Amino acid sequence: MALKLEPGARLVVATHNPGKARELAAILDDRFDLVSAGELGLAEPEETETTFAGNALLKARAAADRSGLVALADDSGLSVAALDGAPGVYSARWAGPDKDFAEAIRKVEERVEAAGGEDLSAWFTCALALAWPHGPAVVVEGRVDGTLAFPARGTRGFGYDPIFQPEGEALTFGEMDPAAKDAMSHRARAFAKLKATLL
Amino acid sequence: MALKLEPGARLVVATHNPGKARELAAILDDRFDLVSAGELGLAEPEETETTFAGNALLKARAAADRSGLVALADDSGLSVAALDGAPGVYSARWAGPDKDFAEAIRKVEERVEAAGGEDLSAWFTCALALAWPHGPAVVVEGRVDGTLAFPARGTRGFGYDPIFQPEGEALTFGEMDPAAKDAMSHRARAFAKLKATLL
Repeated sequence: MALKLEPGARLVVATHNPGKARELAAILDDRFDLVSAGELGLAEPEETETTFAGNALLKARAAADRSGLVALADDSGLSVAALDGAPGVYSARWAGPDKDFAEAIRKVEERVEAAGGEDLSAWFTCALALAWPHGPAVVVEGRVDGTLAFPARGTRGFGYDPIFQPEGEALTFGEMDPAAKDAMSHRARAFAKLKATLL
Repeated sequence: MALKLEPGARLVVATHNPGKARELAAILDDRFDLVSAGELGLAEPEETETTFAGNALLKARAAADRSGLVALADDSGLSVAALDGAPGVYSARWAGPDKDFAEAIRKVEERVEAAGGEDLSAWFTCALALAWPHGPAVVVEGRVDGTLAFPARGTRGFGYDPIFQPEGEALTFGEMDPAAKDAMSHRARAFAKLKATLL
């Protein structure tokens, strides 16, 4: 079986994060019959891997094998140069069980200041994995480079979006119109790559 | 770019294990111009992931990005039911820095005895990942089920082969002719899946 996905195919989206699910659905452009892992009552596996690609793969594999459907999973996060790539795959965990991203953003700001506060370069990475039930999987990564913006600006997007200003842009992801973010985001870039691998 | 690999393409094999490299070359059947990560002087990345697929992906990704060539990596190991799947992704590490598999085999036998010694079921898993430089990756898994054989039998193969007797067979992997092992091994099964995804 070559790695193909027919339009209209039923696809499990292996995320319990409503922000991510909304973005994935917008980018997928209604080409597939999407059902979320939550709707199917699938448990979320523990994200034990150390890379975005490894975690995306682990989540897609678990959802595909448990549901019998092709599954799409995302793993993404913010990497800060002055923090040697942290929070990286721990981006969600820095927000704690209450998903308090205001707290996570404070932690990033404090640590960047403690590191001297001069290098503000950062990047968002998104790994997308597509897994066939008990079959193969494909994984791609998209990345967008930018600069940390302190204090945070904007209330759109989710997670670290208010402190991330992409290269060549005047607005943070938290200030941008969702369509403008979708046109340049790490997630959109990963999707473009994923689509290219399936053609 | 669809995930295709033309016959004759130059391919880095991201393994420094001569036994694995030999098996991979035999299974690939001279269809590709193989070069090993060792020959290119590529460092081996640390295997930090918790799944076979995650580690195979990490190794293929590192070799592809550093060499600029499509890279193939393998991660494989023995899982023992009575040990909750151990040694699993730690199969090589149980042999220590000296790759002393006689010692690793003793450790498996001791722990299985400590666990009651009744359930001898075990399986070998092989994850194969193919990564394009700074591009997509595909990963598949092959598995072969069997029974632990104590004491170990045979001097062929490598690693845990002398204590693994595949289902329906009278010989251990350590006693089998290499061609017989290649016809049924977890590695051969993973290859069959990988080939199917590229057609």
